[in-house]
Amino acid sequence: MAEIGAPLTADVEQRVRDSFARQGLMAHLGARLHRLGHGLAIIQMPYRPELTQQHGYFHAGGSSAIADSAGGYAGFTLFPADSSVLTVEFKLNLLNPGQGDYLEAVGRVVKAGRTLTVCQLEVFGCTADSRSMVAVGQQTLICLRDRPDSAAAVSRPPARPGGG
Amino acid sequence: MAEIGAPLTADVEQRVRDSFARQGLMAHLGARLHRLGHGLAIIQMPYRPELTQQHGYFHAGGSSAIADSAGGYAGFTLFPADSSVLTVEFKLNLLNPGQGDYLEAVGRVVKAGRTLTVCQLEVFGCTADSRSMVAVGQQTLICLRDRPDSAAAVSRPPARPGGG
Amino acid sequence: MAEIGAPLTADVEQRVRDSFARQGLMAHLGARLHRLGHGLAIIQMPYRPELTQQHGYFHAGGSSAIADSAGGYAGFTLFPADSSVLTVEFKLNLLNPGQGDYLEAVGRVVKAGRTLTVCQLEVFGCTADSRSMVAVGQQTLICLRDRPDSAAAVSRPPARPGGG
Amino acid sequence: MAEIGAPLTADVEQRVRDSFARQGLMAHLGARLHRLGHGLAIIQMPYRPELTQQHGYFHAGGSSAIADSAGGYAGFTLFPADSSVLTVEFKLNLLNPGQGDYLEAVGRVVKAGRTLTVCQLEVFGCTADSRSMVAVGQQTLICLRDRPDSAAAVSRPPARPGGG
Repeated sequence: MAEIGAPLTADVEQRVRDSFARQGLMAHLGARLHRLGHGLAIIQMPYRPELTQQHGYFHAGGSSAIADSAGGYAGFTLFPADSSVLTVEFKLNLLNPGQGDYLEAVGRVVKAGRTLTVCQLEVFGCTADSRSMVAVGQQTLICLRDRPDSAAAVSRPPARPGGG
Repeated sequence: MAEIGAPLTADVEQRVRDSFARQGLMAHLGARLHRLGHGLAIIQMPYRPELTQQHGYFHAGGSSAIADSAGGYAGFTLFPADSSVLTVEFKLNLLNPGQGDYLEAVGRVVKAGRTLTVCQLEVFGCTADSRSMVAVGQQTLICLRDRPDSAAAVSRPPARPGGG
Repeated sequence: MAEIGAPLTADVEQRVRDSFARQGLMAHLGARLHRLGHGLAIIQMPYRPELTQQHGYFHAGGSSAIADSAGGYAGFTLFPADSSVLTVEFKLNLLNPGQGDYLEAVGRVVKAGRTLTVCQLEVFGCTADSRSMVAVGQQTLICLRDRPDSAAAVSRPPARPGGG
Repeated sequence: MAEIGAPLTADVEQRVRDSFARQGLMAHLGARLHRLGHGLAIIQMPYRPELTQQHGYFHAGGSSAIADSAGGYAGFTLFPADSSVLTVEFKLNLLNPGQGDYLEAVGRVVKAGRTLTVCQLEVFGCTADSRSMVAVGQQTLICLRDRPDSAAAVSRPPARPGGG
């Protein structure tokens, strides 16, 4: 396959960015899609007190949210146009406290298969002039064929009696 | 050790609830500490569009955030008063789409050690009359002794030139 | 589905036992299939110096070998007759030194899907009158349809110039 | 720290090789320590029918055994002289069927800490002129200080009434 990080065609780039834009959680966390390439996705999330754990560092849950999305979209860049991506599982080792001006999650495809794709996940804590590793992980994705990941195709959310 | 889920003393319960209350991310996600017991913590997070992935379901990142906190506080109920808890690593299998009125994450200690503690993680999608499994995982925690997890002890967050 | 551990039909039991019997590694480790049920497999492996790590305990590699097979065959009991099982990934936490007269690995299906199946793995160190937890894990399996797991169907092993 | 793979001092190299030589399982699987460096260990295991799963490929249990030892000894090269290494947990994704003249497991330290060390694990299937990825994983190790990993220090194995 093409080299990891190679430029995407405009329609693949658009399909991935459209999907990312529909993830309510990424907007809520202030995360943005920084860069996309063939089998690669990089997400950045600036520091805010709303993202912390009990000691004032970035919460591991936020790290894992952007790591999961970075891996998912890294895989999605390789999937057929009429397919969707779901995370099967992921594992994350937290190596250092999450600190810095922003976190950067890098998802990179290690093995692309017809059904399953495996990604490497890395999270860095960054400032203007430093970048230290916060977490490293592995993720398995599944490609759902013939299920376009478009707004129109999103199944109606289940009724929520309590108002959700 | 006492049975998993047995009642906590008032001061342990308070120490855990205080720590949870300092997690900016939990408030930002609308997550609340539903129940605590010996080696057990249950967190609930009501559905909001701000918590979704691209298909309108709960994002796996939100599931993993509350699963991580549930496991961390399950372990923390067993730690000495002057210690802190950090997540070493966790792994989560996403079994079913995250849907329902709220998600419920259950953290349960499987093995409590002097330094390391291992927890089982479960996440359920719940409505008034149903409860289906969304994710299952495993987590390793480390107990940092002589580092009280109190507000006063929180190290000043690093200056953030960009304003964070 | 039927309850985990419920009796298997004779042909399913035979199909699983035949497959286990073709695993050269299980015989080489002295492991035997102790019990099978619906979504359940239990493998036992008696202590031998050939199974140890550097301190004389059971090596984690042996624990993971029988845990992997136990999970794989637990899933295989639920698969169609003309399918094969492969491990996608697994994760194991080593809780206590592996010691005892024999290790017992228990694989149990947590979620059975059309393509993917998730199992819980447990390994115990046992003597005549004790049983302590050695490891706990999680595993993802894939069901390969229309690829019968029979001796005849085994693809000829690749030629090994060096004599293997 | 020194670069990963940098040469070891003679006494560190000896300490690691002595420990490897005491692992009964590695000898039983025909695995040999191929190369050691600073934070690096490479183990090779030639093909034998005694190492197979039901389709004639290398069993994932064998892959995980050498991957676990490779990571463990990669970490051990960085530990103090009077310490021991134990695996806390590991996770392995099986990417391709394990085939070739031999498997090669590469363990590499990603983060070396005072108590915990995290390694990346890779397993390749090799022939004289090819090398394809079989598995990729992550591992957490713990350093037990003041517990020398020497033959003399090995605690007497527990009495095994059944003869073990």
